[in-house]
Amino acid sequence: MSDRHTLPISEVKHLTLDKPLPLDCGEQLDGVRIAYECWGELNAEKSNAILICHALTGDQFAASANLVTGRPPWWSRMIGPGLPIDTDRFHVIATNVLGGCMGTTGPASDAPDGKPWGTRFPVITISDMVRAQIAFIDTLGIDTLFSVIGGSMGGMQVLDWAVQVPERVFTAIPIATAARHSAQNIAFYEVGRQSIMADPDWCDGQYLAQDKRPSRGLAIARMAAHITYVSEEALKRKFDRGLQDREQTSFSFDADFQVESYLRYQGHSFVDRFDANSYLYVTRAMDYYDLAARHDGRLADAFVDTPVRFCLFSFSSDWHYPPSTTREITRALAAAGAEVSYLEIETDNGHDAFFLEEPLFEDALAGFLKVNAGKRGI
Amino acid sequence: MSDRHTLPISEVKHLTLDKPLPLDCGEQLDGVRIAYECWGELNAEKSNAILICHALTGDQFAASANLVTGRPPWWSRMIGPGLPIDTDRFHVIATNVLGGCMGTTGPASDAPDGKPWGTRFPVITISDMVRAQIAFIDTLGIDTLFSVIGGSMGGMQVLDWAVQVPERVFTAIPIATAARHSAQNIAFYEVGRQSIMADPDWCDGQYLAQDKRPSRGLAIARMAAHITYVSEEALKRKFDRGLQDREQTSFSFDADFQVESYLRYQGHSFVDRFDANSYLYVTRAMDYYDLAARHDGRLADAFVDTPVRFCLFSFSSDWHYPPSTTREITRALAAAGAEVSYLEIETDNGHDAFFLEEPLFEDALAGFLKVNAGKRGI
Repeated sequence: MSDRHTLPISEVKHLTLDKPLPLDCGEQLDGVRIAYECWGELNAEKSNAILICHALTGDQFAASANLVTGRPPWWSRMIGPGLPIDTDRFHVIATNVLGGCMGTTGPASDAPDGKPWGTRFPVITISDMVRAQIAFIDTLGIDTLFSVIGGSMGGMQVLDWAVQVPERVFTAIPIATAARHSAQNIAFYEVGRQSIMADPDWCDGQYLAQDKRPSRGLAIARMAAHITYVSEEALKRKFDRGLQDREQTSFSFDADFQVESYLRYQGHSFVDRFDANSYLYVTRAMDYYDLAARHDGRLADAFVDTPVRFCLFSFSSDWHYPPSTTREITRALAAAGAEVSYLEIETDNGHDAFFLEEPLFEDALAGFLKVNAGKRGI
Repeated sequence: MSDRHTLPISEVKHLTLDKPLPLDCGEQLDGVRIAYECWGELNAEKSNAILICHALTGDQFAASANLVTGRPPWWSRMIGPGLPIDTDRFHVIATNVLGGCMGTTGPASDAPDGKPWGTRFPVITISDMVRAQIAFIDTLGIDTLFSVIGGSMGGMQVLDWAVQVPERVFTAIPIATAARHSAQNIAFYEVGRQSIMADPDWCDGQYLAQDKRPSRGLAIARMAAHITYVSEEALKRKFDRGLQDREQTSFSFDADFQVESYLRYQGHSFVDRFDANSYLYVTRAMDYYDLAARHDGRLADAFVDTPVRFCLFSFSSDWHYPPSTTREITRALAAAGAEVSYLEIETDNGHDAFFLEEPLFEDALAGFLKVNAGKRGI
């Protein structure tokens, strides 16, 4: 960890919404804080802004190091000068989602009574997250975003932007995502939630007030989810049945296999940077997401006459949100008469491919942005 | 539960091996108890015996109700008079595996010091389980088994019988199994083990002595594993995004979705009938299984000149042990010159298909047994 690993979460760059935020559950939240980062200059017309929406365990530190944890930025291969999301041309903004734990209001924030919300925090939806982002963009005085881009849960937010305020989105790039969680998606996240809630240190959601952390439960949740982010082929390629620092199996419950050691590391390193209640809320928001259900089951109806230009990506070995789910969205967009392109990238990198080296994906995304920047005169 | 739910585990039908059992780890176990059940008459030549090998969470109560839990038999659709494994023709035996928890010696049994073994029990392998079964069959005075049949982990035992004592196995029927655990298989079971060991009530494996049970950890382990036993298509067909006893989502962490309710039930009902340490040992045995590794990586070499007649089955939507793994075994058998047939059943029932209604599977298995019974003069 670097010496930048010093900033308390309360001091990350943020902005407080001046109006109450209405939520899908019927409640509203006052004084919502939105933590954000940005890179590149906003032009005079305010027409070159791109919003990056992060995935379940992501944050606003997409293109610069995390000031709280010291971790490197999660999308530095995509965002920067001369990179596909080119900060010489675009003003790139990333916010931490509502319900998150990197400075935006969430279950780890203080409630009006001065104590942490914990599970008293209202259950939120993907649309609530986007509603908060819209209010944030309003506050910046930006009318239309040149693009909204995100992978996985970020892609759900992209879709929701295009549905909630289509006239304010010039282009939209949903990556490796779904318009609804399948039963299997829900099942995996339910295992994670049950694992957190089964940890005695969860304290019925009030662990912060008791200075405890359900770290064991959260680590298990992360391990279970992480398996779904990696393809079976990649696990075989990377680990197969390779042993960890030993010549033969130990006849014990140690991490004999490299894949065990890798998974345990994924679990244990996660608990230092993520709030367990946030994990409950954000996975719940994903499980609740069902864009078609809001339109009598017809996904195309969500996009009728949309002016948004879409470019969708999926990855062949992604079994978390398989290509079939993105094809379904693409078909619905086409049926709604939208301008849409879709690229399925052949790779064994699984769901996490969009974080990794995927030249075809990077080139196509860069090209789509460049062509549309021309149309927009940027 | 029926009134049969009264027998203490110590009183189920069992037999004690008169010789010490050598284990792959180098240790040996004295006085191993093997719990078993059998159905149908053993003929005078002792040539009509079939051994049923159970899966991870199975037991010896394949064809009659579990005398301890009162649960119905797990393979009653396959074993019985006139059924595919016909008890009018065959003497069918099922044992509880070594390391199990339904009466056979395992971590819940008493060690020589009179206290429960707990995690002092030696780590065992699939070959150790089969070694115990061979000693058991010896005790019954049976020289050659007409068939060894099992699904999933049971299939690994079937393969190991054919490798350890090929001359004592007339036919072998491995179903929905693998000759080695993949990195993904290991990963899923590692999540389960970590979940059990993270439960404070696991007490470093000595929970029985402290009259505790790591039920929460075991339930999570079962939930995570259960997802891999069901195909995504079947989850969609059965549950999709259906809500459980409600008209709309509750904006809470209750089991809103049917699939959540189903999974929670799978987890909670499991802890009453299974020992958490057994879960650790038996999953570890599966992870360690790698038949090719014992033959310099060449699976075919495990079966050279085998006299065993094989019939293998896999199920198209099984992603736990996908058809590709059974095809690999079939190829190896063919390369070794074995007599082998293989049937891949089209179904959306996933890994658990062999417990469910699969007429093609049942008919083919019945036919294979009947034809070979003819050859054997049974």
